[in-house]
Amino acid sequence: MSKNQVPYKIYLSENEMPKAWYNVRANMKTDHRPLLNPATLQPAKLDELEAVFNTECAKQELNDSDEYIEIPDEVRSFYKMYRPSPLVRAYCLEKLLDTPARIYYKFEGNNTSGSHKLNSAIAQAYYAKQQGLKGLTTETGAGQWGTALSMACGYFGLDLTVYMVRCSYEQKPMRKTLMSTYGAKVIASPSDTTEVGRRILAEFPDNTSGSLGTAISEAVEVAVSSEGKYKYSLGSVLNQVLLHQSVIGIESKIAMEKVDEYPDIIVGCAGGGSNLGGLVSEFMHDKLTGKANPYIIAVEPMSCPSLTKGVFAYDFCDTGKVTPLAMMYTLGSGFMPAPSHAGGLRYHGMSPIISQLYHDGYIDEARAVSQTDVFDAAVKFARVEGILPAPESSHAIKVAIDEALKCKESGEAKTILFGLTGTGYFDLYAYEKFLNGTLTDAPPAEEALAKSEGDIPKI
Amino acid sequence: MSKNQVPYKIYLSENEMPKAWYNVRANMKTDHRPLLNPATLQPAKLDELEAVFNTECAKQELNDSDEYIEIPDEVRSFYKMYRPSPLVRAYCLEKLLDTPARIYYKFEGNNTSGSHKLNSAIAQAYYAKQQGLKGLTTETGAGQWGTALSMACGYFGLDLTVYMVRCSYEQKPMRKTLMSTYGAKVIASPSDTTEVGRRILAEFPDNTSGSLGTAISEAVEVAVSSEGKYKYSLGSVLNQVLLHQSVIGIESKIAMEKVDEYPDIIVGCAGGGSNLGGLVSEFMHDKLTGKANPYIIAVEPMSCPSLTKGVFAYDFCDTGKVTPLAMMYTLGSGFMPAPSHAGGLRYHGMSPIISQLYHDGYIDEARAVSQTDVFDAAVKFARVEGILPAPESSHAIKVAIDEALKCKESGEAKTILFGLTGTGYFDLYAYEKFLNGTLTDAPPAEEALAKSEGDIPKI
Repeated sequence: MSKNQVPYKIYLSENEMPKAWYNVRANMKTDHRPLLNPATLQPAKLDELEAVFNTECAKQELNDSDEYIEIPDEVRSFYKMYRPSPLVRAYCLEKLLDTPARIYYKFEGNNTSGSHKLNSAIAQAYYAKQQGLKGLTTETGAGQWGTALSMACGYFGLDLTVYMVRCSYEQKPMRKTLMSTYGAKVIASPSDTTEVGRRILAEFPDNTSGSLGTAISEAVEVAVSSEGKYKYSLGSVLNQVLLHQSVIGIESKIAMEKVDEYPDIIVGCAGGGSNLGGLVSEFMHDKLTGKANPYIIAVEPMSCPSLTKGVFAYDFCDTGKVTPLAMMYTLGSGFMPAPSHAGGLRYHGMSPIISQLYHDGYIDEARAVSQTDVFDAAVKFARVEGILPAPESSHAIKVAIDEALKCKESGEAKTILFGLTGTGYFDLYAYEKFLNGTLTDAPPAEEALAKSEGDIPKI
Repeated sequence: MSKNQVPYKIYLSENEMPKAWYNVRANMKTDHRPLLNPATLQPAKLDELEAVFNTECAKQELNDSDEYIEIPDEVRSFYKMYRPSPLVRAYCLEKLLDTPARIYYKFEGNNTSGSHKLNSAIAQAYYAKQQGLKGLTTETGAGQWGTALSMACGYFGLDLTVYMVRCSYEQKPMRKTLMSTYGAKVIASPSDTTEVGRRILAEFPDNTSGSLGTAISEAVEVAVSSEGKYKYSLGSVLNQVLLHQSVIGIESKIAMEKVDEYPDIIVGCAGGGSNLGGLVSEFMHDKLTGKANPYIIAVEPMSCPSLTKGVFAYDFCDTGKVTPLAMMYTLGSGFMPAPSHAGGLRYHGMSPIISQLYHDGYIDEARAVSQTDVFDAAVKFARVEGILPAPESSHAIKVAIDEALKCKESGEAKTILFGLTGTGYFDLYAYEKFLNGTLTDAPPAEEALAKSEGDIPKI
């Protein structure tokens, strides 16, 4: 097939859909260092993780040996409702940019949660149901994860309480309604419903816009104090999440093979790492086993630059310091990003797997981009490709465009793959600000970074 | 293939996508009566229609002889960005209902306009561009059509002015932003930017929530007074729109054939008729030519019951009485529906093609349903099928569920096809009302109906 006869959208058939998730840890040269129990500073064991997560997910969290883990039939059935997601050849964007590059994106937004988050939500809810739990607790930033887990819990008849970062809660009331439609209870965080919430409200009376770190603390507190009826569920950062999200990359690789393509460059936005980790999965497998060497770029917002400005150290996963410590790139668990419109990228840390891969050079580059540049790319993309992208996804669009323009300059016909993680239907207040010129960039001051990094425990 | 081995989603490949639209008028036993010039009451001729519409669309409006009309290459290319849309087997809904019926829906919401409206928008914009027009004017109710035409005009670099029914404009500010993102200018209707708007504001000072009929008057006025630079574009009712929307039914039929199915019952929501007309296209072809006889149900809201409570008569297509007259089921062009959340179904009239087919018994039944029943069905559907449906689409869901439950009672394994026209991401204020119990039904009083029908001209 000529490279320009590739269809606009490449779908797998149902029986080509992955039957197993890919566990990158089985192939990592240096595994990431283990989670530590915050009380003992010893590696967290299964029973400690089980206090927080459902048992199967706790096991997956610790699994560093099985290359592939079977996807349960009920999860595969649910996947079939909205997967396989299309791999799209961005012909119209290529034309707009007048680039010799061939641009592909894996579009994960064609489901009501609006993003890739459903891939892990349905798995976590399934295992919770199997275990006989009453329900789950979680946090949400942009609202995509909360919506996804609401859908998943609604499907399996589980209760769900969502702590939603307050600035998102206020900017996106419709997200709350959407979660309620699927039966979830949604609480703005920081809240007075938890000890940690009350403590943070008292400590930072002037900054109640919240953060993912705080919302995590609240959701974990509710789960661990429920006498085992509820467990906590997290939409990013964790090994289990990257495992479930590997469907993105597995499908992408099969779809690209169908049209005889392989990416030279892979671009993914990175907040906690769920999308980037999922997108690169089988490509990273190739890289770790020496079969191929795609150039991988992690894109983050200047306002929350964990990879580009953070340090690689053990730190708490939450602001309230109730979770295990993870070895990761972190800005410090007390870091409070300026209100930013890419709510899904406002996390102080980064997936330990992604952190280790970046530290070891398997993720080739991290790039921080400004919010106005991101929205400029988003609007360009929307007008020619017909999809209104989420601000998070638009970070990847921005860098994919930059790389395609470099190809224009050099004349190279590189193959670029990026992850279009979701849609921006609930982010139109931010688009409105961009269109009327009131959207600003908010990189953190060096002093603020130094201060929050000063909080990182010395381990 | 066993009927229960059908995949969850049935896609056509790109080269199976239709190359021509189906023009049902070529096969209708009784063609619908022609549009009349409101000044002369004589059938509107091409040059009169060209004063309002672009030339190619005006020709299509009058074409009653060509069974198939080729889809231009540029329109097909655009279609490939978001089509073919999936035909979905609603396994989870079937399980919830415990019905022997096999339920399929054609999902048109996987594009940023959120609905099927893009199918006609891109065609109308293409022809306008070909003719060298500067831009288009239009109206929008729920906002789906306005968004679709914004995307289409943005793609071809055409100006667009959208008159948006004021109650929608106020309930859905994000719709306005979305249209602006694609470069459109959005004005709440009735407005003081047109003569007809000012007149209606003066006549109904207490009812400024607006109606599609009024917004149409405003958009037409701007187009016809632009010295040919702008033409008007309409997203429903017209023959040309049903022509373009025929892709829905053509694709549906091919997809059903792939899994050896044919619908016993076809259910579509009907406001102006664009979705129902599109959905039934090739199935109606079979019916008109005696090849098959699916039972076709048009579903409308009790609050705007043109087929079930209207009269079949010549009437104006707009409230300001500036458009040609159409022979159709109508509640009277002055009918002001109570503020309803299915903004796309608030039109006083009905497509002349749909009206004639209903009058002649080819559309077997029209059914009016209440808003609370519709939202109840919508939430049920969302929880098991994972898609938050638009209120308009949910009218079809409600009746599809009712029919499937009848099958449960009778034990019949009927095949039901319904049109899931779009998503409800911009309708969450209405879901919120439903969830908190403040959503009400608003069937019009008999006196109000009698009064507005009294306005219908005696022709």
